[in-house]
Amino acid sequence: MIIDGCPAQLDVDLDYIQSELDKRKPGQSKITTQRKESDTVKILSGIFEGKTTGTPIAMLIPNEDQRSKDYTHNVDIFRPSHADFTYQVKYGIRDHRGGGRSSARETAARVAAGAIAKLLLKTQGVEIVAHVSSVGKINAPNVEIHSAQEFIDEREKNIVRCADPATAEEMIAYIDAVRKRGDTVGGKVSCYIQNCPVGLGEPVFDKLHADLGKAMLSINAVHGFEYGSGFEGSEMHGSEHNDIFLKNKQGDIVTRTNFSGGIQGGISNGMPIEFKVAFKPVATIMQSQPTVDSQGNEAEISGKGRHDPCVVPRAVPIVEAMAALVIADHWLRNRNSFIEVKG
Amino acid sequence: MIIDGCPAQLDVDLDYIQSELDKRKPGQSKITTQRKESDTVKILSGIFEGKTTGTPIAMLIPNEDQRSKDYTHNVDIFRPSHADFTYQVKYGIRDHRGGGRSSARETAARVAAGAIAKLLLKTQGVEIVAHVSSVGKINAPNVEIHSAQEFIDEREKNIVRCADPATAEEMIAYIDAVRKRGDTVGGKVSCYIQNCPVGLGEPVFDKLHADLGKAMLSINAVHGFEYGSGFEGSEMHGSEHNDIFLKNKQGDIVTRTNFSGGIQGGISNGMPIEFKVAFKPVATIMQSQPTVDSQGNEAEISGKGRHDPCVVPRAVPIVEAMAALVIADHWLRNRNSFIEVKG
Amino acid sequence: MIIDGCPAQLDVDLDYIQSELDKRKPGQSKITTQRKESDTVKILSGIFEGKTTGTPIAMLIPNEDQRSKDYTHNVDIFRPSHADFTYQVKYGIRDHRGGGRSSARETAARVAAGAIAKLLLKTQGVEIVAHVSSVGKINAPNVEIHSAQEFIDEREKNIVRCADPATAEEMIAYIDAVRKRGDTVGGKVSCYIQNCPVGLGEPVFDKLHADLGKAMLSINAVHGFEYGSGFEGSEMHGSEHNDIFLKNKQGDIVTRTNFSGGIQGGISNGMPIEFKVAFKPVATIMQSQPTVDSQGNEAEISGKGRHDPCVVPRAVPIVEAMAALVIADHWLRNRNSFIEVKG
Amino acid sequence: MIIDGCPAQLDVDLDYIQSELDKRKPGQSKITTQRKESDTVKILSGIFEGKTTGTPIAMLIPNEDQRSKDYTHNVDIFRPSHADFTYQVKYGIRDHRGGGRSSARETAARVAAGAIAKLLLKTQGVEIVAHVSSVGKINAPNVEIHSAQEFIDEREKNIVRCADPATAEEMIAYIDAVRKRGDTVGGKVSCYIQNCPVGLGEPVFDKLHADLGKAMLSINAVHGFEYGSGFEGSEMHGSEHNDIFLKNKQGDIVTRTNFSGGIQGGISNGMPIEFKVAFKPVATIMQSQPTVDSQGNEAEISGKGRHDPCVVPRAVPIVEAMAALVIADHWLRNRNSFIEVKG
Repeated sequence: MIIDGCPAQLDVDLDYIQSELDKRKPGQSKITTQRKESDTVKILSGIFEGKTTGTPIAMLIPNEDQRSKDYTHNVDIFRPSHADFTYQVKYGIRDHRGGGRSSARETAARVAAGAIAKLLLKTQGVEIVAHVSSVGKINAPNVEIHSAQEFIDEREKNIVRCADPATAEEMIAYIDAVRKRGDTVGGKVSCYIQNCPVGLGEPVFDKLHADLGKAMLSINAVHGFEYGSGFEGSEMHGSEHNDIFLKNKQGDIVTRTNFSGGIQGGISNGMPIEFKVAFKPVATIMQSQPTVDSQGNEAEISGKGRHDPCVVPRAVPIVEAMAALVIADHWLRNRNSFIEVKG
Repeated sequence: MIIDGCPAQLDVDLDYIQSELDKRKPGQSKITTQRKESDTVKILSGIFEGKTTGTPIAMLIPNEDQRSKDYTHNVDIFRPSHADFTYQVKYGIRDHRGGGRSSARETAARVAAGAIAKLLLKTQGVEIVAHVSSVGKINAPNVEIHSAQEFIDEREKNIVRCADPATAEEMIAYIDAVRKRGDTVGGKVSCYIQNCPVGLGEPVFDKLHADLGKAMLSINAVHGFEYGSGFEGSEMHGSEHNDIFLKNKQGDIVTRTNFSGGIQGGISNGMPIEFKVAFKPVATIMQSQPTVDSQGNEAEISGKGRHDPCVVPRAVPIVEAMAALVIADHWLRNRNSFIEVKG
Repeated sequence: MIIDGCPAQLDVDLDYIQSELDKRKPGQSKITTQRKESDTVKILSGIFEGKTTGTPIAMLIPNEDQRSKDYTHNVDIFRPSHADFTYQVKYGIRDHRGGGRSSARETAARVAAGAIAKLLLKTQGVEIVAHVSSVGKINAPNVEIHSAQEFIDEREKNIVRCADPATAEEMIAYIDAVRKRGDTVGGKVSCYIQNCPVGLGEPVFDKLHADLGKAMLSINAVHGFEYGSGFEGSEMHGSEHNDIFLKNKQGDIVTRTNFSGGIQGGISNGMPIEFKVAFKPVATIMQSQPTVDSQGNEAEISGKGRHDPCVVPRAVPIVEAMAALVIADHWLRNRNSFIEVKG
Repeated sequence: MIIDGCPAQLDVDLDYIQSELDKRKPGQSKITTQRKESDTVKILSGIFEGKTTGTPIAMLIPNEDQRSKDYTHNVDIFRPSHADFTYQVKYGIRDHRGGGRSSARETAARVAAGAIAKLLLKTQGVEIVAHVSSVGKINAPNVEIHSAQEFIDEREKNIVRCADPATAEEMIAYIDAVRKRGDTVGGKVSCYIQNCPVGLGEPVFDKLHADLGKAMLSINAVHGFEYGSGFEGSEMHGSEHNDIFLKNKQGDIVTRTNFSGGIQGGISNGMPIEFKVAFKPVATIMQSQPTVDSQGNEAEISGKGRHDPCVVPRAVPIVEAMAALVIADHWLRNRNSFIEVKG
């Protein structure tokens, strides 16, 4: 994985990057895949004496637990709702040992890169936090965020990464039951960006929420994205949806409500940025399913290998990482939005 | 508006482009803004004797009904849930005559460009159709699409652009009532892409649905995007969500269900591509609202000018246009996915 | 023509843009083409009350003197050393009315855009000046530049745009003689960038001189580019070519010589940037030449229309404009080279 | 190093990639640096059973002979005509152990990537060959190329990589003499592209020769680029410079002369593409030189380490590699220049 364009002189805390990766790695708990990998990151370039130098930052996370034989039964069979069929047609060739770039393993690189983006944003006071807000039909109540660190501490107390302890317990029990019957279930991750400066985002195609949406939809298994009032907002009236401006005690212009989700006209307005991401259930189930082979002949497939019964607990750091990359890019880009007029 | 990268030798039907623009133009009916503009498109370059030449295609849609004085009351006031405040902070300067690039007028260029993308895709048999699937809490039932043209014909029979006639009537009455009390309401547009070839989309960041999502979220007032099973899919189990492959009578590999929405691993699988877009209610209402001026002083604003009570009827051609641009880009890109191995 | 990414709040002097265009326009003197066009620029967007707003700047220069019939004799014939043949094969279609994008007219847009880049750079004290340093085998001596304005004033005193008056006279007489016998001749333009800040340019692919080189080579008729010691530098030894660093009276680190042409490791070092651009002779001559038609049949062509006997006098503003665009881009880009470490 | 966008199904010969790297590696002969590195390339992704899969191709060339202590004397001193000073100012931080991205070592990645581009182009019959055409003031006569392989065989018979044996001997003796007195010398590399299809290159900014020029100017130490008639062409008349079209025995449209260097209007015309690249003398010399430190204090520097007395013999594979990357990119891009009209 290579990051280009990171400014020089940023302090890089390698332990922090690793701790972020640890939240995504497999084998964390009974409700994640039992594959064991340390996902240890190694920095190849771009950092000298703890600081970025302006050189592209290359990081490598070696694959330690490669069991190609787990996949030999899939050589010529298209797994349902996987990318086997589309890759085969698109490229006319396919490396059957795992999913290649459609493997969730690909997201480790995103988390490592996102950790550096988070460090850059922290120098500006920006904090990005996410948690599991629903599993199947179990929904967490809205959580008020007092401080980013407290929120994370609360969330990390349970293995499903939901900041509401009562809901977390319910979710864990549910995922475990789903896992035992060889099935999987989907869920949602909610993300909050605090202290984002006003002005990030471009007015037309690269609206801040459009780039956040693309980033989220590029994560494996994501089927939906909404920000602010989202899909519910489409049922509201303008008179209730409009966020009224007012001056707060610090003299800043803020809004009374935040149906805009911190973004107006594609540009951050200083209010918390809020969005939600929907993940479909993992396609690999431990049950027998009919399918076809590459010639279209009928075949049968039964899940082997070690897979997640529910992807959202491990998706939390990925959502945060992708959000950080988008915000960092727009922060850099926005530094050229106007020139200082001298004199 | 300029399109670069359109292949040469494409037949361009100027009447078709204009007819697409006519579906977006203001002043169409009692449930759209009463502003009158012909939105007549003029081609400046790139087309010779009815065909594209490979030269960038420049098109101009002059602004005929510019009433700057409609906006003079807004010079120093931030309209709620508009981009006035964010533009002012981002650029330090603002052209107060209308919304600039945050004006919905900007979408006319998208429709004109999208019309050319549609013509390109039609040479490959790809058809893109959308309609209004909900207004406020009024939802249309699922509509089966037999032919793209029939669907469009049905949809164009009513002014709200819903392909279900009974729901359309209900929607129109509702929008009209909302309009009469000076308010606005949101809604949703559903889009279907038929006959899309297998293989479009890139495996990691530029997944087909990620680019579709970004394109939709870049349209004014959009607050959410979902494809295939979408947000509901996050409540399902893998065993019910997986799309089972089978060979159809024509010998093609298809899927029994289509929760994947025609896209697997970010790449089109040949099934219909289906997605839904949520629009918030229009922010300009004909009611008095509190706000602040650029110094943060309290102020009051009451909507003047001529605005839409509900944006979705005019958003239908915009959604189709943006979808066409994304699919056309990926179709061109995919032509280099592999090289033919000779002999 | 559209410029995107220009910062807001820049003062834009429309008269200045027009004066730059006037240096490129046809019909200026007996040694340029006799075509008459005012090349009047019209601003369509991006400027409000004399300042940029951050919106893309669209400018239009209408074609006033379009004489398509001047070109009807060329419909099916490939003019030697023109782009007729390559366009026909590349696109399979060709607009025979003039050269399309291979027409020198295309460079008017570059000059208009470059004028805005120059205005941006002037706010930073950067000055870009060029002149004709050779015509055919007539070479101007090296000119010392005291002030950019003086240099330009001197250059503009003669119609060939050479800052050395004696050489200018010789060049003018030579071009006029060439013109009278229906022939054309090549030449060179030398360009100097004064007060460029240290640090512009990227270390690997986007080296400052690589981007300058590409920009110059993208101008019609350019066949060569060199900077600093250039081709002669390849004949030198390291011991004579190395630019020794020293501290000047102002305390700045400068170099004793400037064989590096103001750029080291692809990055500006604060010394004047110097480069030279070679233009081939104009291909359209007023003499009869053999050629082929699109079927490869032998044909004969004799130049009609109104063309330049030597392109370099009108190329001077184009070279300056392209240099300004490159430097402005790198100046904006460099603002993110490092972050300020607080505390 | 990562290549993205290489089509799937290309046969990749790892030995070929390594053999290209061997032509660039240090320690080849008495006239190159005595640093010893095997430059062994390892493929990390993108190739499966000898073929590309469409996945990005990652290759790693570990640094074996890192002698950081060779550089400790330079920690706070700016080497003349190196990038030390410009990097320090641009980034405010500098890894003093070698030149970082300004190190010639960076070009190994270019050669490895270029080898894959060459393999892609070979499937289309395109051959790219270069040789040393001058060292200091010693110039090779023009060499006629009968076959690419013969040319390379001839060139590889001598350590300076000049395809003219007599000149090669003279060059070798000269470089050796320069080396013995601790000095360095510049030179030129000429490159020829055979069997390039008609139509590669874009008409305006991305002209084929503009992209070739940028690619060459991005190589360390390059100070000049010319193609076809180049700088000499600026001294010619149109009547002698125009390349007359004719139909050859095979029925192809060719040109009698090739002053256009195989490119007209920025687009390849099917004739051999010819260009020349000028390299300045290597800056590190084994002689004592005055300089300054980072505070501007006077200092002295004497070259240590192991450096090349003349860079051009090792630059030959780099020039070929960069040319291959540009041509491959434009070949891929050109596949979308027009659509086939059916029926």
